[in-house]
Parts: sequence; C-alpha cells; structure tokens
Amino acid sequence: MDPSLVNVPPLKNLTIDNITDNVKLINSNCENPRLKYILERLVQHLHDFARETRLSHEEWMTGLLFLTAVGQKCTDVRQEFILLSDILGLSLLVDSIDHPKPPASTEGTVLGPFHSHEAEIEPNGAQIAHDPDGEPCLVLCTIKDTDGKPISDVKIDIWETDSKGFYDVQYPGREGPDQRAVMHSDEKGIFWFKAITPVPYPIPADGPVGKLLIELRRHCYRPSHMHFMFEKVGFDHLITALYLRGDPYETSDAVFGVKDSLIVDLKTVSSDQAREYGVSEKSRLITYDFVLVSEEESRKLQEKNAMDAMKALGRKMKLYNGLPIPDVD
Amino acid sequence: MDPSLVNVPPLKNLTIDNITDNVKLINSNCENPRLKYILERLVQHLHDFARETRLSHEEWMTGLLFLTAVGQKCTDVRQEFILLSDILGLSLLVDSIDHPKPPASTEGTVLGPFHSHEAEIEPNGAQIAHDPDGEPCLVLCTIKDTDGKPISDVKIDIWETDSKGFYDVQYPGREGPDQRAVMHSDEKGIFWFKAITPVPYPIPADGPVGKLLIELRRHCYRPSHMHFMFEKVGFDHLITALYLRGDPYETSDAVFGVKDSLIVDLKTVSSDQAREYGVSEKSRLITYDFVLVSEEESRKLQEKNAMDAMKALGRKMKLYNGLPIPDVD
Repeated sequence: MDPSLVNVPPLKNLTIDNITDNVKLINSNCENPRLKYILERLVQHLHDFARETRLSHEEWMTGLLFLTAVGQKCTDVRQEFILLSDILGLSLLVDSIDHPKPPASTEGTVLGPFHSHEAEIEPNGAQIAHDPDGEPCLVLCTIKDTDGKPISDVKIDIWETDSKGFYDVQYPGREGPDQRAVMHSDEKGIFWFKAITPVPYPIPADGPVGKLLIELRRHCYRPSHMHFMFEKVGFDHLITALYLRGDPYETSDAVFGVKDSLIVDLKTVSSDQAREYGVSEKSRLITYDFVLVSEEESRKLQEKNAMDAMKALGRKMKLYNGLPIPDVD
Repeated sequence: MDPSLVNVPPLKNLTIDNITDNVKLINSNCENPRLKYILERLVQHLHDFARETRLSHEEWMTGLLFLTAVGQKCTDVRQEFILLSDILGLSLLVDSIDHPKPPASTEGTVLGPFHSHEAEIEPNGAQIAHDPDGEPCLVLCTIKDTDGKPISDVKIDIWETDSKGFYDVQYPGREGPDQRAVMHSDEKGIFWFKAITPVPYPIPADGPVGKLLIELRRHCYRPSHMHFMFEKVGFDHLITALYLRGDPYETSDAVFGVKDSLIVDLKTVSSDQAREYGVSEKSRLITYDFVLVSEEESRKLQEKNAMDAMKALGRKMKLYNGLPIPDVD
C-alpha cells in the first residue's frame, strides 16, 4: 500500500513485552471492524503461544516449513489445510460455534472433504449405493422441528464410502456418482433409501498432516459413518453424520466427529420390514429421527452464546452482522 | 499410522467446551516431550482464538484459503510464511526469546530473507558496495565483550541493498555478489569498510501477505538499514541491523525490526577522517560499537527467562535441551 495514503500510528521501542501491543497498534487502522478484532485476537494468541513455549528459532522454522508443505500439498481435489484443521479439532469447534443446537435438536458434525454436487435426485426407496461387495443396509428416517412437527420437502444430501472405504470422487476413472444421493422428505417428514453398511476408512495420510499424526502417535482412521446434510428455507443448515455403535474407532476418530447423540445401533430388518421395504431378510437397518432448528432459533442462540462468551472474557462488545466486535462507542 | 501400533486414550462426548481437552488427550501419546508441549499450547490457543472471536464457518474457510495461498506462493527463492511471520511481529519475538540480550549488549533484530552465503571475504577497508548511484558511506565499528574487552577475529557478515532498494539476489541476471561481504575484526576488535548509505525499500507485496497489509491499511516499507551477523566460538550468534535516525519509516517498519538502541545518526566524515580512511570529504559516516554476549551468559539468561515465564504461568516445568516442558515426574 502506498505509504502516503496511510497514517500509521508510531511504534514504540520494541521489546519482548511490548511487541504484541505494537503489532495491534499498527493493525488498528483496519477499516473492517471484524477483521480488526480477528487480527487482534490472532496476534495475542500467536505471541502468547511463542512466549509460553519459549519457541526456539529452529522450532519456528520447522513450523513455517510444515505450513509451507501443507499449502503446497493442496490441489483442486485436496485441501490439506482443512485436514489439518480437522485433526486439530478446529473444524468441529467452528461448526459448533456457527451452528449451535438447542438440546432437543440433532447435533452437527464435520463436513469432511468428500461432499460433491454431482449426486442425482432420487425418490424415497431408491437404491443409492451399488457396490456389490457392500452389505445391504436399509435406512429409515424422519425429520421434525423442535415442536415435533414433521417437516416436508427438506432437501437431504446423503453420502458414504463404498465397501473398501473410498468415496466415488476418489476413483480417477469412475463413470459417475455412486454412494450418494439428494432426496426430499415427504409430507410426513419421512425419507428412506437402500444403501450399504458404512465401514471405517483412513483420511489421506500421505502428506504433511499424515506425518504429523505419526509424530503424535495417532492413527488416521475415521469410524464407520454416513453423511447427511439438510436444507430448507427457514431452518438452520444442518451438516451431520450417523456413526455405528461399537466401531473400533468410535472413541478415537482422527477428526473428532463422533458425538454420543449421533451414534446409532446397526440393527437387522424384521421379516415384516423386509417385505414392506422390498429388501432381503439379511439386510441391516439404520433408523434415525432428525430434528431441525429454525433459522431464527439458531441465530438467537448463536448471538446469545457469543455475548455470553464475550461477557466471560470481560469485554464490552457488540454484534456486527451477528458476530462480535469491540464496542468502542 | 497403523492403528494396531497405538493405544489412543478414549475421547469423551465432544462439545464446544471439552473439545480442547479431548484433542490434548489424543495428542498425549506423543513421545517427544517438547513437541507434545508445543502442540498442547498450540491447540489451547487455536481453540481459544476461535471461541473468543466466535469464528464463523465462512471466516474459517477464508483463513484456510489465505494460508493455502501463502504456502503456494513459496518457492526456492521466496518464503511467504516467513514474511507473514515478519509482518505479525512473530519473527522479532522469536529472536528476542531465543537470543536474549543483557542490558549492556547489542540487541538483535530480524534476519530478513536476503542473507546469502555468496559474500566474499574482504579485508578491513574494503569497498563492499559498487553501485555508482549510491551515496558513499564509511562504516567504522568495534566489537567488545560485556566487560569492554575487544574481541578479535569475529566473523562478520554484512549486507545491504543498492541505491534502488534491491539486494543483489533480487536481480535474476546479476554477475556475482555485491553490497555484501564477510569480514573479520582485527586484534583491537575493529572492522571498517566503504559502503553506500542505506535506503528504504518495500518488502515483496505482490503475494497474499501484501494483500493482507492493504486490508490492514499498512504500508509495506522497511526503513533504511544495514544488516550485520556476528559469529565467534564462545559467543552467542548475533543477528542485527543498524537503522538511520529520521528515516520516514523509522516508527512504522513493516516487519517491526527497529529498536532504539540500533538507531544511528548518519554523519559526514571530517577532513581528517577522509584523509585517514581514503574517502571523499562528502562521504557519509556510520559508527557503532557492538557488544557480544558470551554463549554461557546468553544460555543462562535464556533459561532464567524461560523459568520465570513458566512460573508466571503457574506451571511446574523443567528444562529439556534448554527448553521448557511440563515436569510430570
């Protein structure tokens, strides 16, 4: 930026103790109050992190080269920084902050990198997974609001891996989408489909994030799950997943996606169900009743949580586009 | 990592409040106590940052795409992550932590990205800058220890820009090193050379860091300075620079390198000096007396500062290779 266009407040003699205040000072001309607040907190935490660890020059360089490698691993079809955020629990945290759920509603979880916009629209009862090695699994669901009223015509995105633990988009030579669909709930808030039983799978571990997991002696597996995304005007966007109880990675998900309320029992269909839904008597069964929150209820809860958090910080804040900024008026 | 080789402690039901403890828990198998401590503090600050800003999903994605762009801007001859660290004051802070200076000694400052290993070894009195448009400047220095005793045979790296504000390495077609040299102090601790008066220059601003500076309404200039690096067995490695008093960017250095003790007056040589050192009577003059700290003194101070900082944190810590880790024995 042309120096003649800016009026930078003068920095004081820089020391280990005042560098943080000086960086905040020089950033204080920022005209976007939200970016200014984010940078203010970022600089404080970044500097406190260095002071509390007594970060050495060598460790600093190792960290910068790690971040460089993470950036350079990213391509059109791979986002290694999202993966890093996932394995540090940040992705789950940001979802929890941005989409808070009142007690009676379905909790959200991590989106993951494998949602695509290619899925075909399917009617209730559709066969959405075609892997012949997959174990057939019937999925019966309802969608209601927090008053228990069915919600019709909700757009539902569903996606899962094949029996080998790979999503369709991970096969370079694939012919079209599979193990995914877009459906809509009927007038009773019901949607159901035929899929395969989810299996555990590793997150991509051949990059810098995989190396970090090895250093931390963590495995790179996610427990068996099926993804769901719900959209309807007037309701808060819900990104979630159902996890199978008893999975070997139920308590050690590499990306922290599992929540107790999202764990389901993998059952087997009854003879009556097999006949009613046209599936084999050996077919497995997942049932779940989803509860969506209205947009207004979610926004109010998000703003209340934000103001509570600011109060706990002891800061005088106000909301700006629903997000907190310092109240300096 | 093969899941059968690790014994991951079970995670609890994840919420906005316990996600941080859960991430620390899953990382607690790390066998390198220093990496484990660094990750523990990193996760705490990263999560606190998200909670205190109520970071939205959109802001999170903007941040990850910014970091991706920073990584992808890096090449063999450009390190955009170091530049990001520089403009956030982290580089100066890490240098201050890693190379603490007792009051009587010369302070350090940022290395910057333009040091090279190509400089030729020159004798006292050498002409180290050959830009015909540069203003001739005589530089007369001494090096002493903290007891005031001259230190001979210190290896000194010196580098500066040409009159246009560019280092030699920034010219793709250049023939060899210029505006840089390696010298050695004589038995009286003296070194001196003929150079050109430093000029201000912008840091590389055509990448994502440059865009961030514009958002923050900060300019990208560094005040006029000359770099010095000192090495001698038994003494703490000193990376520093001298800044010209009255420079337009003296109080707004884009990378926070200026310290009061490193600001010098740009003088003009006397007639006697012009004759003695063989320079024009119009030649400018910089003089400085550097004071190096012994390795032992620096290490003791670094360890004392580390333990003081840990005490202020209220943590029971011990030193491991001179760096703090939790004392859990």
